[in-house]
Amino acid sequence: MEPPAPRRRVTIVDVARHAQVSTTAVSKVLRNAYGASPEMRAKVRRAIDELGYRPHTGARGMRGQTYTIGVMLPDIRNPFFPEILDGITDSLQGTDYQVFLGPGCNGEKAEAQVTEAMIDRGMDGIVLVAPVSSRTRLEHVASAVPTVVIGRHGSSARYDTVADDDIEGASLVVGHLAGLGHHRIAHIEHHETDPARLAEMPNARRADGYRLAMRAHGLEDRIDVVSTSYTQQGGHEGAKLLLSRPHRPTAVFAGADIVAMGVLEAVAEAGLSVPGDLSVAGYDNTTFAAFGPISLTSVDQAGHEMGRNAVRLLLERIADRHRPATRVMLSPTLVPRRTTAPPPA
Amino acid sequence: MEPPAPRRRVTIVDVARHAQVSTTAVSKVLRNAYGASPEMRAKVRRAIDELGYRPHTGARGMRGQTYTIGVMLPDIRNPFFPEILDGITDSLQGTDYQVFLGPGCNGEKAEAQVTEAMIDRGMDGIVLVAPVSSRTRLEHVASAVPTVVIGRHGSSARYDTVADDDIEGASLVVGHLAGLGHHRIAHIEHHETDPARLAEMPNARRADGYRLAMRAHGLEDRIDVVSTSYTQQGGHEGAKLLLSRPHRPTAVFAGADIVAMGVLEAVAEAGLSVPGDLSVAGYDNTTFAAFGPISLTSVDQAGHEMGRNAVRLLLERIADRHRPATRVMLSPTLVPRRTTAPPPA
Repeated sequence: MEPPAPRRRVTIVDVARHAQVSTTAVSKVLRNAYGASPEMRAKVRRAIDELGYRPHTGARGMRGQTYTIGVMLPDIRNPFFPEILDGITDSLQGTDYQVFLGPGCNGEKAEAQVTEAMIDRGMDGIVLVAPVSSRTRLEHVASAVPTVVIGRHGSSARYDTVADDDIEGASLVVGHLAGLGHHRIAHIEHHETDPARLAEMPNARRADGYRLAMRAHGLEDRIDVVSTSYTQQGGHEGAKLLLSRPHRPTAVFAGADIVAMGVLEAVAEAGLSVPGDLSVAGYDNTTFAAFGPISLTSVDQAGHEMGRNAVRLLLERIADRHRPATRVMLSPTLVPRRTTAPPPA
Repeated sequence: MEPPAPRRRVTIVDVARHAQVSTTAVSKVLRNAYGASPEMRAKVRRAIDELGYRPHTGARGMRGQTYTIGVMLPDIRNPFFPEILDGITDSLQGTDYQVFLGPGCNGEKAEAQVTEAMIDRGMDGIVLVAPVSSRTRLEHVASAVPTVVIGRHGSSARYDTVADDDIEGASLVVGHLAGLGHHRIAHIEHHETDPARLAEMPNARRADGYRLAMRAHGLEDRIDVVSTSYTQQGGHEGAKLLLSRPHRPTAVFAGADIVAMGVLEAVAEAGLSVPGDLSVAGYDNTTFAAFGPISLTSVDQAGHEMGRNAVRLLLERIADRHRPATRVMLSPTLVPRRTTAPPPA
């Protein structure tokens, strides 16, 4: 499919023409003014929806820019995201750009609301961190404003991407655990059914990488995946399921550090010890993983570097809307710590 | 001191008059246009600074609003702040307002930059979480846009405040530890020298509350305060100092959970156990404190409720800029967990 041509901004005149009413009527509806009939309102609202009209924001400087970059984070509690954010803000230091975060964007509806709000306020560029929206939706955003997508695979001609090689990261974890002598290595993944997301989301890639690596180590019979969510609660739930297996695993690869937090919690509740009874590894190498009393084996996907690359691509794209789309893929590294050890004898 | 009268917005005409140049000249300087001499630039820039002129942002809807609320957080890594943020976003659910966060605002300079950026983009209201800027500076912000200050004491006729009774919170911790039999109870505070901040910042109030409570329990001779910072590193550093005392404390009251994280790390490094060798209490009742394997005794200051109150006050203030300033003070509660126990025999 050819990418759509960059959209001309829809104006109030287009809306009026489409709705077959006057621009004054459109303006009345827009400002909820007295004197617009319900029929008129319905007609105008329909035209607005069909054309994708957004009220013009005039907050632009002389060069047509607002010097504002919007960053959408899926979950402000996930300790990986501050690393990306630091990379973004450090790279913009000394420029005229100000970063504003759209908080709490877990889910397609919330993502649409935040990205529309960013477009509406005339932001010059948007960085989307691990968005769950459809490709079509992301391309819609990118057609309105220069966009970089972090932490999602798959390519688009409309936006740039920065991702970590999640297949490789998962393979590092499985290789580490297998090297310690583990065979029953289980994985807790983020539940995903949408085919596009299964191909593009980092969580799905990590689960794929886990399966591939288990096969590569001759452990295909031991593949054991529990589907919950990339939250602390998801880790807790997943670990409880795994610990109730007749032959419970000797090692758990949690798809994210925040999932590993829930695993550690469930293991402690079950009166088991880490790594004595169970080895646990996470992914993201957050400050939580590095926290001494936890000391979680994890995968470092260089969040700071991801943020830095995203800014570089975004500023390039703001300068030249028509340059070819670029994908940056970073290589992760394993950080072994105290939560992984050989299996119990 | 009488509060200054609400400011009329400074216009480009005022700048031109003040600089004794034409408005065209001001406009040239503003858009970095060719033909403005260095002398002219200097003159105009000085007038802009002296008058506090801000380019007009036109991003306003028909009713003069942008339906944008700016929230300034001092540190996105401190796990207390998401609680406040949830209270804010939950309260705005179903309204037309969109929240944007100004990230990484630790320090007066960064705070000025973010608040100016928010004012510049025509935000309708601002919530400042634990700002460190001077009262004058906060009143400057509040004179430009409706402002609510969270987590800072002291009153102003210009802005509303929502705070936790930090003196009471500190007294709950000391009472709990003294009740367990501790006498050598030390405190790690955030270093503060500015007299205004000493009177208004929650960290300073907690240190005051600690001293008052130690006296109330007849432990004035045992008062032991280490001044570092409200960061994980500050906690680590503070604990190392306390553990090297000839008579080391049997309990540490860390001024914030993130400080307690550093304490727990230092204690583990020293080969000591919590609470066997040392009891540790934090403040904020973050998800980290509630995390099972940590299980940190802490003070719940109801972050969600703080955020909810801030939104209520802000929307009232947006509706009526001239209503009297309001202070909301919330009462904290103690959440005892596994990091505190009677002192070693």
